[in-house]
Amino acid sequence: MSSHHVIREQQEPALIIANGEACSFELMGQLLEWSPLVIVLDSAINRVLELGIKIDVLLGDFDVLRNTSDFTLLDEQSIKRAINLDKIREEQYPIEIVHTPDQNKTDLEKAFDYLIEKGFPAVNVIWATGRRADHTITNVTNIVRFREQLKIVVIDDYSKIFILPNTYEKWYPSKTPISLIPIGDVTGISTENLKYELSDDSLKIGYRTGSSNEVKEDGLVKITYKTGDLLMMECND
Amino acid sequence: MSSHHVIREQQEPALIIANGEACSFELMGQLLEWSPLVIVLDSAINRVLELGIKIDVLLGDFDVLRNTSDFTLLDEQSIKRAINLDKIREEQYPIEIVHTPDQNKTDLEKAFDYLIEKGFPAVNVIWATGRRADHTITNVTNIVRFREQLKIVVIDDYSKIFILPNTYEKWYPSKTPISLIPIGDVTGISTENLKYELSDDSLKIGYRTGSSNEVKEDGLVKITYKTGDLLMMECND
Repeated sequence: MSSHHVIREQQEPALIIANGEACSFELMGQLLEWSPLVIVLDSAINRVLELGIKIDVLLGDFDVLRNTSDFTLLDEQSIKRAINLDKIREEQYPIEIVHTPDQNKTDLEKAFDYLIEKGFPAVNVIWATGRRADHTITNVTNIVRFREQLKIVVIDDYSKIFILPNTYEKWYPSKTPISLIPIGDVTGISTENLKYELSDDSLKIGYRTGSSNEVKEDGLVKITYKTGDLLMMECND
Repeated sequence: MSSHHVIREQQEPALIIANGEACSFELMGQLLEWSPLVIVLDSAINRVLELGIKIDVLLGDFDVLRNTSDFTLLDEQSIKRAINLDKIREEQYPIEIVHTPDQNKTDLEKAFDYLIEKGFPAVNVIWATGRRADHTITNVTNIVRFREQLKIVVIDDYSKIFILPNTYEKWYPSKTPISLIPIGDVTGISTENLKYELSDDSLKIGYRTGSSNEVKEDGLVKITYKTGDLLMMECND
């Protein structure tokens, strides 16, 4: 096992670059600086390579996989999306290429599975939102099924998204925007120090969400809930 | 009642410009051309005005409302977001300004309520996705609660999103990407002519979604389901 994969206590989170809208280079730079491992999903690899960053793992079903010799057979759109694995292996050495053909999982879920298997406790995910709405909603909501195995934070230029534990307490400045988004039905939600407080309330996706709340005053915010999966979204325009 | 508000049978949909990422000008132009009514949410108004288009209704809680005389009291960020109603009334005459202070609904929901009250049968929504993730997920999932009252289609440069009726049939070309996204729990789903068919299956947001399916061959696609709210997302990269 390489030193790369020795897990220290309180290790910094790994970083996954998914298949949505690119974030600012500044945000990416901050996250790259501390990340012990960078995973890129295959559908994003060409856009990532253009940025000239070093990646550790390239993962996906490689539906778009083509090697150089095939390029003459492709139309322009396919060439743009095609992946030249030989070139990537050479330029990014050492790099692990992980082929995950399972059609019942998204590439992002497979990347979470990979990190859990390697013993990583936490991950930040960028480029998981924006562009295709089906990918955005699937990427953001599917994190709930990993709640016991991996601490996942989805980050873009406007948003920071994570699963709330059943009891959550953190210091926030006054007026910080806070949205509580139920993934399905969530019951027994109580809050302290929000502008619109909840008291043993229920939220239900599509029908009653806790979007666009805010912190009442500088200090601890406390959120508790009993059943279901509740996402915290800290967002700013 | 002005001719604007006389509802003809099979009227073209109204258009709502919401508070997310701007779409291409081409897409906006296509939708503006046929729209009998254009509603803009207050949080987007300054970005919309810059495009020089004519709007019919400006709607919102006007949290950011300021008139010219107040501008000296504001910081730079607030000035950018502030709305000069007098100027808008003059430049956009005639325009209806609708003040909707209800804090239990999003401005997009209030715009749906407005259209239902005026008797509109259908609406396209642009700028409802992108930027803040809490707005995106709330805008997209909240359309299900209007399923009996208004035919809503959310459109961006990559996606077309609408609620599936319990029986849906439409001709599609082979390989068209189709994602079936359950808002909550959806049961009894059966499909015909998809690559990954469902047969009396259930989907559950966060745990089992029907993202990234595709049409098997040129022809009718049929989708039926029994309970819950199922969104269709036709998306392309």
